[in-house]
Amino acid sequence: MPELRKDPVVGRWVIIASERGKRPSSFTSVARTQEARMCPFCPGNESATPPEVMAYRRPDSEPNKPGWRLRVFPNKFPALKIEGSLNREPEGIYDRMNGIGAHEVIVETPDHGKDIVDMSIDEVRDILWAYRERLIDLERDRRFKYIMIFKNHGEEAGASLEHSHSQLIATPIVPKRIVEKIAGARRYFDFKERCIFCDIIRQEIRDAERLVSDHDAFIAFEPFASRFPFETHIFPKTHQSSFLEMSDFEYGKLAACLKDVLTRLYLALNDPPFNFVLHTRPVIRDHHEHFHWHIEVIPKLTKMAGFEWGSGFFINPTAPEEAASYLRALDVERFPEIRSQKVMSG
Amino acid sequence: MPELRKDPVVGRWVIIASERGKRPSSFTSVARTQEARMCPFCPGNESATPPEVMAYRRPDSEPNKPGWRLRVFPNKFPALKIEGSLNREPEGIYDRMNGIGAHEVIVETPDHGKDIVDMSIDEVRDILWAYRERLIDLERDRRFKYIMIFKNHGEEAGASLEHSHSQLIATPIVPKRIVEKIAGARRYFDFKERCIFCDIIRQEIRDAERLVSDHDAFIAFEPFASRFPFETHIFPKTHQSSFLEMSDFEYGKLAACLKDVLTRLYLALNDPPFNFVLHTRPVIRDHHEHFHWHIEVIPKLTKMAGFEWGSGFFINPTAPEEAASYLRALDVERFPEIRSQKVMSG
Repeated sequence: MPELRKDPVVGRWVIIASERGKRPSSFTSVARTQEARMCPFCPGNESATPPEVMAYRRPDSEPNKPGWRLRVFPNKFPALKIEGSLNREPEGIYDRMNGIGAHEVIVETPDHGKDIVDMSIDEVRDILWAYRERLIDLERDRRFKYIMIFKNHGEEAGASLEHSHSQLIATPIVPKRIVEKIAGARRYFDFKERCIFCDIIRQEIRDAERLVSDHDAFIAFEPFASRFPFETHIFPKTHQSSFLEMSDFEYGKLAACLKDVLTRLYLALNDPPFNFVLHTRPVIRDHHEHFHWHIEVIPKLTKMAGFEWGSGFFINPTAPEEAASYLRALDVERFPEIRSQKVMSG
Repeated sequence: MPELRKDPVVGRWVIIASERGKRPSSFTSVARTQEARMCPFCPGNESATPPEVMAYRRPDSEPNKPGWRLRVFPNKFPALKIEGSLNREPEGIYDRMNGIGAHEVIVETPDHGKDIVDMSIDEVRDILWAYRERLIDLERDRRFKYIMIFKNHGEEAGASLEHSHSQLIATPIVPKRIVEKIAGARRYFDFKERCIFCDIIRQEIRDAERLVSDHDAFIAFEPFASRFPFETHIFPKTHQSSFLEMSDFEYGKLAACLKDVLTRLYLALNDPPFNFVLHTRPVIRDHHEHFHWHIEVIPKLTKMAGFEWGSGFFINPTAPEEAASYLRALDVERFPEIRSQKVMSG
């Protein structure tokens, strides 16, 4: 059983998941064993994954058989487990909790070679629809305080399988980074009676120098205090605290904006490893006014070193204004041609 | 000029150091250009570095010439710059500050092939002495609120040159991670009237299952909520808020403890990339009672992925008790033999 442990000084939680099976000796061999040819996320290999919790599939197809265009199932090696009741206990000065949670995989396409940048807007919207469905379902489970949806693309960004997929982890506590964002936003709201994110969006639109993409109801920009080169955030322009507040129409618009951002990063950085993560409000619905959901996209281009770990400072070698101007200037129309050359030569 | 920028929501500072010269195109080539053969940290190449601010050298040798056994100079590509006065200004909702600070390099040995694990206790103590001298000197500069000393070993841990060295960055603000530790420790002190770190040390000695090394005045253990496999912290057993409170005698004892820890990690993980970072109290001396200095040693074995970035949670695949038991059982006497085999075959 995985276990949650709390740092007694800073209150940070850590998931100790020894069952994932890293013995000391497993870190010492530098060479990764070559991945088996069989991709467990490809159609026909459904039996290699746990049974699906949902799928978008042809009406004439059966669960856990081919015929799907998107498929969601529990992670085979979950960081947290769904079974059991929450149990918190002290150990002297320390706190531990059993590792209850949900950990799911969203396979975004049956096509092994396809990434989000290759998909139609409708296909990208299907992914966002699936996020929505899973959020609605898991928010009913009283044990979960937060549901985090994220994507790792490329080995350097932590993806262990290359077939395009996202993941979801539901946790029995609100993660520290969300708590910090909510606390900061609440302080601002208490002072100004305005949402800090709405004010940031207003300033970014006015200044325009950090804008990457202005897409109807959505805006993408490089944050003023970007931690990483080409870090890009996507926000709904109007105030929404939850990803679930979008209208049906808006999911399509967000799909177009997300695809545009990922395409620009692909062109600028030659298919970089990246993470994206959805920051929506916690399950408890009391952050309406001061929290504003968004997506953080982080290309993985730099390494964390001692100073960053020790201080919590980040050293970013690329000014966000410079990155934004570069991303804006790209000709996204040229993407299909560049992509097909890369796929052919790769 | 580098610039400090503050995230308006969570209050995290970022150093935007565009002068370090990463253009968008510089991220796209995957292959690193082979490092030139000339090591700027080797004796004879002193002119390749900025002039030294201190050195331990033979009495008959001249500054910036060979004859040193340890040498400190400003970083040639500093994240923060020493010249200028502090200047804080708003930009709409945002805050920026010019990037005043100090960034120094401590070359730990003239011998290009030598790491801390190969040094005598006296040589390691010299490194700690140098930290002490630089801390004392830089704490006099009123512009600096914190001085962070750290080491990156191995390319994966962010070391750009392999010749053994540490670094120091003095910042005009107390870093977020230090602020969080102090705040957590103060909360505990207000409640218990005891130092939380003293209580942790007491419990670790009693439980013994996470101990790595119990070395006279110092103790090394795997933290209860270790973020990373084989993360190891070193503490003075008696209460000291600053690294500068050690007696002369204790620097030698700390040297032995640090060398022992690094040797065990070397043996367990086959010379892993690692960072270590010194957490001492801020320059302002008002954290006597509740802060307790220590060193965090972090082997770089796992990757941060979307969930970690997005949540602030860490997923650690190795229980600290397991790592500690493995590290304790190692026969450090065998190190010289194993090391010489590796050096010969490498």
